[in-house]
Amino acid sequence: MSRRLQVDERRAQLLALGVELFSTRPYDEVSIDDIAGQAGVSKGLLYHYFGGKRAFYIATLELAASALLDAVGPPGQGPTAERAREGLDAYLGFVEARATAFTTLMRGGLGNDPEVEAIIDRTRQAFVDQVLTSLGLDDSRPAWRVAARTWIGAVEAASLDWLQHRDVSREDLVEILTGMLPGLVATAARLDAAPGST
Amino acid sequence: MSRRLQVDERRAQLLALGVELFSTRPYDEVSIDDIAGQAGVSKGLLYHYFGGKRAFYIATLELAASALLDAVGPPGQGPTAERAREGLDAYLGFVEARATAFTTLMRGGLGNDPEVEAIIDRTRQAFVDQVLTSLGLDDSRPAWRVAARTWIGAVEAASLDWLQHRDVSREDLVEILTGMLPGLVATAARLDAAPGST
Repeated sequence: MSRRLQVDERRAQLLALGVELFSTRPYDEVSIDDIAGQAGVSKGLLYHYFGGKRAFYIATLELAASALLDAVGPPGQGPTAERAREGLDAYLGFVEARATAFTTLMRGGLGNDPEVEAIIDRTRQAFVDQVLTSLGLDDSRPAWRVAARTWIGAVEAASLDWLQHRDVSREDLVEILTGMLPGLVATAARLDAAPGST
Repeated sequence: MSRRLQVDERRAQLLALGVELFSTRPYDEVSIDDIAGQAGVSKGLLYHYFGGKRAFYIATLELAASALLDAVGPPGQGPTAERAREGLDAYLGFVEARATAFTTLMRGGLGNDPEVEAIIDRTRQAFVDQVLTSLGLDDSRPAWRVAARTWIGAVEAASLDWLQHRDVSREDLVEILTGMLPGLVATAARLDAAPGST
């Protein structure tokens, strides 16, 4: 294995450990010493790779965000409702399989830290764009953007509730979340068409 | 003014300042020195009242959460749809008038800090309970609880989008958020009635 590959792999292992650690313990209570100890590496190596605890934390959030975006992937080719269902099912598949990564990302605020907010916002915006693209729209029309953003917020809230209670099936969650779409689309279409509105 | 009242008032002033500070700057970049300096009090007094920066931060989140709950108040007496609209309008009134307090609360995570999560979760749960009570239900029925939690997540997401863009009217936001309710209620009723489901 080349030296570059070894470095990448070691870095990836450390980040995967970070995702686990930060999902189960408060940021303030995780020290660089803990991370180095659990990973079996020196503190110096962690500083060398990531610069410090906050930068390491931000890198774990970035990893969780890319993993979620990769899991959902680009929208398929079918009718809008079918694409929404497919995208949602892939999203919930990630939530189920990678619960700690999802929780780390969604609960990952650091008291209004702009870099942290930027990662979370960028992830949300990618899904908002996907929803709008599926509808043949962009984010230049406020009522539609709000509707898409609202639906993504609904999906996030339902996902966190699901991980906490685990008392509804994935299929039922898909029903609940797609069941709100026709009303949302109808309202956005009405507001978008109304003269002088929004 | 009695000494006790003076203490309460001073404490309230410090917390109000904290809500402002923490909504505009990352937690890590706000020091006890800054807070004391801006408030014109000694560091010792801050430690005496609150114990430390994290405890002070948590107290500001608690203040923001109670203010939001107070602003919405208990549900009225009208038909369900009307009560939803009234509650939502009061919620958005708070979001508009107390934008920094709302942002501090919603963006206020501290890297999976359990006390912080507890305040945010308790606030959400209070609204979930209100929604369920308005429907004559409690949270013992999973499909209904998920639907209520999902809607509260939608309201939070729409509120944050609104503060960021300010390009839809409050009335339009109420339309978008109430427009998704019939589909949500119909799905929850169907899943709750289905044998073996959820």
